[in-house]
Amino acid sequence: MALNTRTSSTTYPEPFASRMVGREKRPLGDIFELSNFGVNLTRLIPGACSALRHAHSKQDEFVYILVGCPVLITDQGETLLSPRMCAGFKAGTGNGHQLVNRANEDVLYLEVGDRTAGDSATYPDDDLQAALDNDGEWQFLHKNGTPY
Amino acid sequence: MALNTRTSSTTYPEPFASRMVGREKRPLGDIFELSNFGVNLTRLIPGACSALRHAHSKQDEFVYILVGCPVLITDQGETLLSPRMCAGFKAGTGNGHQLVNRANEDVLYLEVGDRTAGDSATYPDDDLQAALDNDGEWQFLHKNGTPY
Repeated sequence: MALNTRTSSTTYPEPFASRMVGREKRPLGDIFELSNFGVNLTRLIPGACSALRHAHSKQDEFVYILVGCPVLITDQGETLLSPRMCAGFKAGTGNGHQLVNRANEDVLYLEVGDRTAGDSATYPDDDLQAALDNDGEWQFLHKNGTPY
Repeated sequence: MALNTRTSSTTYPEPFASRMVGREKRPLGDIFELSNFGVNLTRLIPGACSALRHAHSKQDEFVYILVGCPVLITDQGETLLSPRMCAGFKAGTGNGHQLVNRANEDVLYLEVGDRTAGDSATYPDDDLQAALDNDGEWQFLHKNGTPY
């Protein structure tokens, strides 16, 4: 029942992995062996971001802000969030999303995502695309299809 | 992004529906048209409970306590939860779970559950069993198989 202290790191290739410095994810759902969806307790120190701005083809995502005020960036622009606000990102819209912590205090939020097979991700701002392979691992390619 | 004020009520038959008085669910995931999982912001006034004690066959569940101190009841007995604690209920274990608010202040928590088809639920403490029909609606039966 206690919060897990294990953290998970990014699987992005460079130069993108280095941009994830200051992001710490605690996989809460894994503690209870949940397999249909994941729940992370994620901390962003000042300057850190949730992920590259991205959109999933098949997996829904949801975030609930617990502490701090991250900026949500989507195709519609920027929205300042605060504690007790939430946002959802329906699969298949192609509208990339990202949280960025531009404040001077840490941001802490819950993020939920399901584990639908055959998912892929697009990154509107970066030369990157990704797809889940048959082992459930993300494979990253340049936008022209060459691998990293 | 704002919290929804719509609430959802129980689909339990009587005499069970009346036991859910004092439970208010705000379906946050629906605001964003998420379909792979649901997220509710649920309030339990003093004396209220989350659900009948139950276990799902195929759908995982997860709760994160925001406010208040509910008692979690499972086959292992009772555990007092408090804000920032979480619990997960893996599908298929048959271990029924329920939150009960025995305190004098409201309990507020996030609950997440996926939407895997063909789910069913067992209720160890009550003469009830349930199964999702082809329309995604819960059908309730006595334990001997007769309908309510």
